[in-house]
Amino acid sequence: MSEQDPLVIFTPSGKRGRVAPGTKVLDAARALGVDLDSVCGMRGICSKCQVAPGVGEFSKHGVTVSPDALSPINAVEERYDRVRGLKPGRRLGCQAQVLSDVVIDVPPESQVHKQVVRKRAEVRDIVLSPTVSLSYVEVAEPDMHHPSSDAERLLDALKAQTGHDDLDFDRALLPSLQKTLRAGKWLVTAAIHDDGAPVVVALWPGFYEGKLHGLAVDLGSTTIAGHLVQLDTGEVLASSGLMNPQIRFGEDLMSRVSYAMLNEGGATEMTAVVREGIGRLVDELIEEAGIERGSLLDATFVMNPVMHHLFLGLDPYELGQAPFALAVGSAQSCKANDLGLDIAPGTRAYVLPLIAGHVGADAAAVALSEAPHRSDDLALVVDVGTNAEIMLGDKTGVLACSSPTGPAFEGAQISAGQRAAPGAIERVQIDPTTKEPRFRVIGVDLWSDETGFETAVAATGITGICGSGIIEAVAEMRMAGIVDPTGLIGSADQTGTPRCILDGRTHSYVLWENGDRQITVTNGDIRAIQMAKAALYAGARLLMDKRGVDSVNRVVLAGAFGAHISPKHAMVLGMIPDCPLEKVTSAGNAAGTGARIALLNREARREIEGLVRKIEKIETAVEPRFQEHFVAATAMPNAADPFPLLRGVVTLPEVDFNTGGDGAGGGRRRRRRG
Amino acid sequence: MSEQDPLVIFTPSGKRGRVAPGTKVLDAARALGVDLDSVCGMRGICSKCQVAPGVGEFSKHGVTVSPDALSPINAVEERYDRVRGLKPGRRLGCQAQVLSDVVIDVPPESQVHKQVVRKRAEVRDIVLSPTVSLSYVEVAEPDMHHPSSDAERLLDALKAQTGHDDLDFDRALLPSLQKTLRAGKWLVTAAIHDDGAPVVVALWPGFYEGKLHGLAVDLGSTTIAGHLVQLDTGEVLASSGLMNPQIRFGEDLMSRVSYAMLNEGGATEMTAVVREGIGRLVDELIEEAGIERGSLLDATFVMNPVMHHLFLGLDPYELGQAPFALAVGSAQSCKANDLGLDIAPGTRAYVLPLIAGHVGADAAAVALSEAPHRSDDLALVVDVGTNAEIMLGDKTGVLACSSPTGPAFEGAQISAGQRAAPGAIERVQIDPTTKEPRFRVIGVDLWSDETGFETAVAATGITGICGSGIIEAVAEMRMAGIVDPTGLIGSADQTGTPRCILDGRTHSYVLWENGDRQITVTNGDIRAIQMAKAALYAGARLLMDKRGVDSVNRVVLAGAFGAHISPKHAMVLGMIPDCPLEKVTSAGNAAGTGARIALLNREARREIEGLVRKIEKIETAVEPRFQEHFVAATAMPNAADPFPLLRGVVTLPEVDFNTGGDGAGGGRRRRRRG
Repeated sequence: MSEQDPLVIFTPSGKRGRVAPGTKVLDAARALGVDLDSVCGMRGICSKCQVAPGVGEFSKHGVTVSPDALSPINAVEERYDRVRGLKPGRRLGCQAQVLSDVVIDVPPESQVHKQVVRKRAEVRDIVLSPTVSLSYVEVAEPDMHHPSSDAERLLDALKAQTGHDDLDFDRALLPSLQKTLRAGKWLVTAAIHDDGAPVVVALWPGFYEGKLHGLAVDLGSTTIAGHLVQLDTGEVLASSGLMNPQIRFGEDLMSRVSYAMLNEGGATEMTAVVREGIGRLVDELIEEAGIERGSLLDATFVMNPVMHHLFLGLDPYELGQAPFALAVGSAQSCKANDLGLDIAPGTRAYVLPLIAGHVGADAAAVALSEAPHRSDDLALVVDVGTNAEIMLGDKTGVLACSSPTGPAFEGAQISAGQRAAPGAIERVQIDPTTKEPRFRVIGVDLWSDETGFETAVAATGITGICGSGIIEAVAEMRMAGIVDPTGLIGSADQTGTPRCILDGRTHSYVLWENGDRQITVTNGDIRAIQMAKAALYAGARLLMDKRGVDSVNRVVLAGAFGAHISPKHAMVLGMIPDCPLEKVTSAGNAAGTGARIALLNREARREIEGLVRKIEKIETAVEPRFQEHFVAATAMPNAADPFPLLRGVVTLPEVDFNTGGDGAGGGRRRRRRG
Repeated sequence: MSEQDPLVIFTPSGKRGRVAPGTKVLDAARALGVDLDSVCGMRGICSKCQVAPGVGEFSKHGVTVSPDALSPINAVEERYDRVRGLKPGRRLGCQAQVLSDVVIDVPPESQVHKQVVRKRAEVRDIVLSPTVSLSYVEVAEPDMHHPSSDAERLLDALKAQTGHDDLDFDRALLPSLQKTLRAGKWLVTAAIHDDGAPVVVALWPGFYEGKLHGLAVDLGSTTIAGHLVQLDTGEVLASSGLMNPQIRFGEDLMSRVSYAMLNEGGATEMTAVVREGIGRLVDELIEEAGIERGSLLDATFVMNPVMHHLFLGLDPYELGQAPFALAVGSAQSCKANDLGLDIAPGTRAYVLPLIAGHVGADAAAVALSEAPHRSDDLALVVDVGTNAEIMLGDKTGVLACSSPTGPAFEGAQISAGQRAAPGAIERVQIDPTTKEPRFRVIGVDLWSDETGFETAVAATGITGICGSGIIEAVAEMRMAGIVDPTGLIGSADQTGTPRCILDGRTHSYVLWENGDRQITVTNGDIRAIQMAKAALYAGARLLMDKRGVDSVNRVVLAGAFGAHISPKHAMVLGMIPDCPLEKVTSAGNAAGTGARIALLNREARREIEGLVRKIEKIETAVEPRFQEHFVAATAMPNAADPFPLLRGVVTLPEVDFNTGGDGAGGGRRRRRRG
């Protein structure tokens, strides 16, 4: 282009260049690598390419734009404006021609690769780059003199418009192909899935006015959560969850593995029920969002290794025993049909890769969401559940392991434990002087010592303690000197409160009582929490050893449960390594977020596939130091690590309730603290 | 390699080169590009690489081979010989090392790309290069310190041994993967299908001793014929056929298309029954051949366009009307499961490409078998059936069309017509002087005027005339002056034989009578044959026009029916263009042969895919000259083309039985002969 040719400047990208006079804005954008959408092959129908040209002095860009810098509104644009309406000042990029220097703004809705801004400052935004896109084309009519099939002519038209020379056609669409082409009078809209090998996955007669949708599923052992997402905005249109119907074969994963081992066809049966369950979830989501089923064309799935194998129709037998060999662990890119899901004939599915025999695609999704591999500082990311998946890393490398925390954090194995549901004690405070507790219950906004609590709680009653409640209770007991660092609850005499009652050979702390009903924290409860948190900490500590560090810069707690844990209380227990409390953040359902990222951004799939290969996997079961870390971590916060930052903000009374007779061994551990 | 290194000469290829002393024979073969098989990864188990080294003076090759040119028989070879036996003089190429100059013969059974010699001189042999091959590998055991899935380690082992870097694993094998690996103690045999994208399609624990098999199916409108083939030899182990169960929806294709149009779900119903039928055929073939079902890993299919669409689950509606648009016509490479066939979990299927809306994959298969595109002289290839598929071409190009001959050649529309079955008249001779006929009947070796015929025919009776019989009868009547060139049968007076009897307004010729039972050739029969043969000839003539020729060098008659047609009689009728009679040959079931070639040689698939694109397709329905050729071709042999070569060997009396009253129009046509 010569200096005489008009200069085009696109905002917000700032990309600029000269084009021949008469060049269409869309062509100019493509030539300059500007992200401007288009579906209809420059026919002025889709309006995806609409732009907002500026007029006047643009000193920042050093140009003055005349009112006739673009060609006058033409008949196609007039018709579009009349029939569908165009915002004031907007032009169709496929119609407007550049005549002289011009500044053209590409509004967000005209960009293919829009950014979805996430609320949390520490994580990156999601760039929209979904696997499915639309293309509206005119297909050549059949000609007896040059016989070729309808599929061939459709592909020719799509290849010419999209540039996908290797485009293929999903066999499942063939039965409806000829009717669709004729219903559209040889004008059709194709949905093209492109995740390596582009393929036509849906077809509508004429111009398809609707949106494309995708599904992100977090397939947990207990619950299956699904989000239905609009692919061009990233917006979640509907979210729903259901209990994993496999629960009837066993509450936890190992009992399901046993079921498969002990019952001929048991694995097949569990595969069938979980697929049925997801099918129901899909139906619900489609109905709730009010979308056309045929527009739901992509789905991503994350889950732990056992659920992965059961979902894929594989017997999880080998995952029940060392060496925990996966049948397959790489990312699965296939049709939803291949996974027993009947969504639309062409719907695609992507199952994120597993990291190792104990570290699943859910952990991979957490990595995608929390991106430890992109972190400047050293981050510890913990997904707390029945198994804790733990990752430690930064830009220079990431380590991962899994640690068998057991279900104590979810309220199981706790005498008054229950799932997080209305009536459950979820927060606890204990006065260090009076040793008197106050608490909050799920479903009630007041603390138990506030006026009106009794009335407010009447609807649900006080039914038990959930996971976050027991963590706060034990941590508060530790800070109030009711339980000693080894985990022994003192007697009423030792602690000075009648709430400590003798309960068999040990003591319990009465959190609440009403008539003959009582909710207590028993010494058994403390032991269960100690085991769980020691496993979690030992896993983290093992990764720190491997990495050669004694501390981490920040801690991210992922998982629905992680969202409810108080960082201070978790650290008092010694669940997580010592670090500044404000550096402990919650990532919420990071696995679900990761599934959404993989749905919305196909490059993220390659990223996680690459990361999974590079992550250094540590198998806690065969690491000799794990046991040592575990033993030290049974103490609260820890018998080996000093937790100086924690001790700077909380007081941890160094009480000792071991009278030498009950063999709790606290004395020995305390000595090692030195 | 230096001149000091030993020289290795392989026979029969004659490939030669120097290798470092100690090089294994198999490695030497690979380095020199010699076709030497190997399955077991040089473990001395499969014996596929066995060779026969020579000793002594080889003046032809200019070397003298010492008895110790190869390393002594080693322990692996000794064990193989002891356990399984090795032919005298044979060595295992993966064990024997080259020490000095040597001549090594590769026996046919050790070659991957063996040639299957075909009986007919005019066609090429089939080179074996099947899509499926075996590979025996040792897979690394799982290691908790380096977690990776069983699938990944299996693929790693196979990639290393086969060099297929892009090898994939069929999802359908995943459920049995872990058990198979452990049953084989980490030694397994994999079957790899490679037709562009290599994929593991079957897996056996340990070394698989069996053979691999394939299926070639010719899916006709009337019958479905299948051949079960051993892939490493090309040998047909079992052949079977069944009536196409779709016949209950309509005898001919157009009535099936109508059924689909008139009945909701009719196409789906027809798809289901034909797939079921093929399923039964597969079961029969497996049982007859006595092979393991899991070894049947590839299948090829040929058929006409309507059967193609119905088999693929597509409504043939558009094929019932101009412009005869195919939904899809390109070769289909997929899983047998995708076509509703449950053979083995990994079995592949390949459907040959269609040529045009009327010219099917069966014609493509005929092209593969008869190879007009490789012919030095100009060949006309005709596949005779309800539709005739016609190809004309040589190395410089091929044209193709289809012509609607109707079912007359199959005995339908003929008054005494019947399918070719015992009791049917199949050959006819008429004495030109006495006008007396003699004939032969299917199931009897004697002619009707030979002693013992009456007794021999008693078992079946004389039940009617089959397709080849009616062609001979009409041609003999023409040569005996009983029917004139326009197709009019003369009266007893005109012909001088009382066998010509009045039959309504026209005459019939009594071929046989016994008491009150009679088999006659009516003038209506002659008309039906004239219409059918005129369509066939007009199609051929149209291709000759397009090619700009008046004659062809040779004619190939394909199809089961083509195998029974007498070239002379066909030419007397003017079914096929004039050419030396010895240049008219029968190709038998060339479509079935083409399906077998595509099964046995994967390069043939690329060849036919390329040829189908290059073939010039002629649509007879829209060619103005077709009608003109058709009218001229209703005369016998032809009202426009002189057939000089034919007239040089047979006498065709120029009788004329048109008395001006019956409007047969023969007079006008005769004048054009002028």
